[in-house]
Amino acid sequence: MSRGCFITLEGGEGVGKSTNLQFVKAWLEMRGIVSVVTREPGGTGIAEKIRAILLEKADEPLSEQAELLLVFAARAQHIRQVILPALESGQWVLCDRFTDATYAYQGGGRRLDVATIEWLEHCVQGDLRPDLTLLLDAPVEIGMGRVGRRGAADRFEAERGEFFERVRQCYLSRAAQYPERYRVVDAGRPLEDVQVSLADELAAFLERQ
Amino acid sequence: MSRGCFITLEGGEGVGKSTNLQFVKAWLEMRGIVSVVTREPGGTGIAEKIRAILLEKADEPLSEQAELLLVFAARAQHIRQVILPALESGQWVLCDRFTDATYAYQGGGRRLDVATIEWLEHCVQGDLRPDLTLLLDAPVEIGMGRVGRRGAADRFEAERGEFFERVRQCYLSRAAQYPERYRVVDAGRPLEDVQVSLADELAAFLERQ
Repeated sequence: MSRGCFITLEGGEGVGKSTNLQFVKAWLEMRGIVSVVTREPGGTGIAEKIRAILLEKADEPLSEQAELLLVFAARAQHIRQVILPALESGQWVLCDRFTDATYAYQGGGRRLDVATIEWLEHCVQGDLRPDLTLLLDAPVEIGMGRVGRRGAADRFEAERGEFFERVRQCYLSRAAQYPERYRVVDAGRPLEDVQVSLADELAAFLERQ
Repeated sequence: MSRGCFITLEGGEGVGKSTNLQFVKAWLEMRGIVSVVTREPGGTGIAEKIRAILLEKADEPLSEQAELLLVFAARAQHIRQVILPALESGQWVLCDRFTDATYAYQGGGRRLDVATIEWLEHCVQGDLRPDLTLLLDAPVEIGMGRVGRRGAADRFEAERGEFFERVRQCYLSRAAQYPERYRVVDAGRPLEDVQVSLADELAAFLERQ
């Protein structure tokens, strides 16, 4: 049995990752491809507990370094328990955010040292990288408008506009840096249009396999 | 105001760290030295949540890498929120376990790569190291006998004897490697004798300050 493919959906707040991940799963299913939908931080019982610590708005401020290490602790657990077993059994893995989000949020947004992120990525992932990363890109004000309608903001959603602008620019610059793996989809358009683009990208990806 | 001193108590299971930490605090208090007693993993609200994940015996096995990163995430938070503010305000910090425990448990016990631990130590602590480390040393069977009387074992206490033997040997070898900072106290003796030795070591430490 051949190893499954690892596809990640990335993007800032409110760009439609969860909705479109279900679309990607359905699109693959129609072509007979079984996939596991998961998310980061999280994806296992323990990693979801770590996610809760990361998202909670508590009186005690979470230090930026603790945040970064928690993200990679959850990732190590997720890879070991979910991602690698699925890929090795031939299933595809569709993940709502992965390490590109760490570069974008902790590197771009919080301005943490990129060399530290690279070291942790190497330590936790070895050579595991996504085979395809679909970046849902939209201007910050559009995404944040959608998030505002979702109710109480979590610890990240409560950041300011300039934080999310840095996150977006970091995503775009990584997309430019890794053009074989990244596909940028304009998520500022109506959902149907976004999904037509996603279907095109998936068809092209299947073609390349 | 001069910076406080940072004293850590180390040792395997059941060597009496908690009891003796209170003794050290009282001994210092009688000499007019105010200290903060804390512990690792833990010591802040967030770090205690991480501790709970580390100690819980769950159906999902915690990967060794996730364990190591959680330990340092909790430490980063503890240093930022508790240890550094206390030291900088002139208080002493008495900590039940610190990074020597990571070398002993994750490095010695679990046989994780020591270079990875060293990198994380440098990343999270910069040049923060304990000024004095009191290693309570006892044969594994003595400590484990005491732990057995405490009730349900946590995820670490449930490890096997050879694990704790490696932990003990790692502690002893670090004590030999850092003789200026480490003092080994034979904790296999009655509590009063242990505390006489601790008092001697503290008096000698104060002398050196």
